[in-house]
Amino acid sequence: MRFTLADSRLLRESVNIISELVTEVTFKVSKSGIDLLAIDPANVAMVDFKLTPAAFTEFETEKDMDLSVNLENLKAILKRSKPEDTIIVSLDKDKNRLTIDLTGSGKRTFNLSLIDYDREQQKLPNLKFNAKITVPASKLDDAIADMGIVSDSVALIASNTNFTMKAEGNLSDAKVDFPACDDTVISLGKEEEVMAKYAIEYLAKMARGSKLADEVSLSFANDYPLRVEYNVQGKLHLGFVLAPRVSND
Amino acid sequence: MRFTLADSRLLRESVNIISELVTEVTFKVSKSGIDLLAIDPANVAMVDFKLTPAAFTEFETEKDMDLSVNLENLKAILKRSKPEDTIIVSLDKDKNRLTIDLTGSGKRTFNLSLIDYDREQQKLPNLKFNAKITVPASKLDDAIADMGIVSDSVALIASNTNFTMKAEGNLSDAKVDFPACDDTVISLGKEEEVMAKYAIEYLAKMARGSKLADEVSLSFANDYPLRVEYNVQGKLHLGFVLAPRVSND
Amino acid sequence: MRFTLADSRLLRESVNIISELVTEVTFKVSKSGIDLLAIDPANVAMVDFKLTPAAFTEFETEKDMDLSVNLENLKAILKRSKPEDTIIVSLDKDKNRLTIDLTGSGKRTFNLSLIDYDREQQKLPNLKFNAKITVPASKLDDAIADMGIVSDSVALIASNTNFTMKAEGNLSDAKVDFPACDDTVISLGKEEEVMAKYAIEYLAKMARGSKLADEVSLSFANDYPLRVEYNVQGKLHLGFVLAPRVSND
Repeated sequence: MRFTLADSRLLRESVNIISELVTEVTFKVSKSGIDLLAIDPANVAMVDFKLTPAAFTEFETEKDMDLSVNLENLKAILKRSKPEDTIIVSLDKDKNRLTIDLTGSGKRTFNLSLIDYDREQQKLPNLKFNAKITVPASKLDDAIADMGIVSDSVALIASNTNFTMKAEGNLSDAKVDFPACDDTVISLGKEEEVMAKYAIEYLAKMARGSKLADEVSLSFANDYPLRVEYNVQGKLHLGFVLAPRVSND
Repeated sequence: MRFTLADSRLLRESVNIISELVTEVTFKVSKSGIDLLAIDPANVAMVDFKLTPAAFTEFETEKDMDLSVNLENLKAILKRSKPEDTIIVSLDKDKNRLTIDLTGSGKRTFNLSLIDYDREQQKLPNLKFNAKITVPASKLDDAIADMGIVSDSVALIASNTNFTMKAEGNLSDAKVDFPACDDTVISLGKEEEVMAKYAIEYLAKMARGSKLADEVSLSFANDYPLRVEYNVQGKLHLGFVLAPRVSND
Repeated sequence: MRFTLADSRLLRESVNIISELVTEVTFKVSKSGIDLLAIDPANVAMVDFKLTPAAFTEFETEKDMDLSVNLENLKAILKRSKPEDTIIVSLDKDKNRLTIDLTGSGKRTFNLSLIDYDREQQKLPNLKFNAKITVPASKLDDAIADMGIVSDSVALIASNTNFTMKAEGNLSDAKVDFPACDDTVISLGKEEEVMAKYAIEYLAKMARGSKLADEVSLSFANDYPLRVEYNVQGKLHLGFVLAPRVSND
């Protein structure tokens, strides 16, 4: 097994974002790329991540493998990479560890031990949404920061002409409108309005996907889980599922 | 009541500075602009602030009004404005709150509840000063930071030819001279030298007015309150009164 | 005694670095410059520093003198200097203090009291090394940061063709190679390999010498103290001695 990344940014930012939700994870390596599916310790959020062979300059793997690591350690190592560094990840079977070479003006080698991490196999839940919104990723990031100054939860409300985020605090409240237009696409099911509430703390972590992709899609239904998805040109998929806050919260 | 600000900087920076001294305030709105007069909880400093209609692109108000708000909440909202945003503030009488619209690449709306805040009417004290100094605002800011590394109080000393700030600490002391010159104007009464001491903690907060105006004036007398004033071209006035530290401190 | 520095950077950065190891120090002033030799409170590291008259635009001293100061206070004062400031240091004998003038767009004066600081005369130990390595200072700084994410100690290993830094942590380890080449010079004694371990905490403080000089030399022997040295074109010498961590640490 040997992967080479000419640009470390996609992997580094993804690991940064995912490590905000989970610490110990299992990467599944196969000919179709690297996959991860994990649930946060509070069972409120799920993250699914895929890096395809197209994201690598070299992607060699003989057989399917599960590689469990501590993300904090991996994050610390990737943080040491410089923009001009090439990253080579290989498996040291004998010592049960990953070898990560950062080569640029010099060569630096890190070894990261694989961990035992048995957790029952997870699957993405089969969800049916009534609303799907696509907005510029940076605008979602901004809007969630807007909400964060007044409350710890936000309502997402979609109609055919408008997508609204609303938060209500003690002394102040906030509202951001995304009217359906060039950069905001709204697709609704039969209902005229779809509404659900989510925790801002989690949304803020997910919205950092704006560092990876220009666009984000939000799929939800009334009082139903939210699906957040970022895609980078066939190279990367970063998705989340977030449990709703039911209305009597 | 409806105000539009094409440039949010003046309001945002003013609120930042004032919120360092007081949390709950009453803005008085009239045809002549927006006024504020407040005393800090320790009764050591007073701040007076005026934003004239010239600071706004639109300034409509039917009658005089007192609008009391929590400055921390207002600060958090204004902090969310971007340089290119237009800010529109209006009164939602029914719900007893201010509506603040930030419009730029999108439209974001915040509502800020008015608070009950009855405090006896304050007035600026009638003060007679023996010295008035005008210096570049950034130089005052710098000099106070210089003083701050050696002590928590500073002496202001004015003669006809020189304005001096002095601080004495345990192991070190500091002195900054502002000789009367092009950018430093000194105007003294009958006395040959005027001297008073003030708390650096408060002065440092006031000196942040350098973010608003290029020049600052300092008026004082022997062991007497200090008046600090910033003005922006007929648009804004930000003033402070600071109680002296008497010499046997 | 009177020194003038047109460029405050050398003195300011040196004091910043040294103050991370010791707080109270004695500067020895003589016609050959300013010297300092100090041991950190834990007796693990020694620092020696020399600023020659060539570093100054004016360097006047009548007789040899010992000037003891609190480095934290000196650091705070030097931090207030701006890049364009000229620094003039003189001795105020009557008041037993240093006078430090920062002159640029204005003149600011700080006085720093000399302290009583009697400690037995220190001398640099007479050390015999088996390996001497010269590497770019920024690369050493980087490599130590690399090591710091996996452990609190690092092994330095020198052979005739390669210099290696290695650190081992619980779940991960790190290794940086400096092959002998244009910018890495390795000079070994009779032994084929030389190895010793040192505390990263101390090395990280010393490696900040990269702010002063482009190159650093490391001299050591098996389980023996390390000598770290930075030189600036005959103007400045900043050296350290660091006790080894013996292998059964």
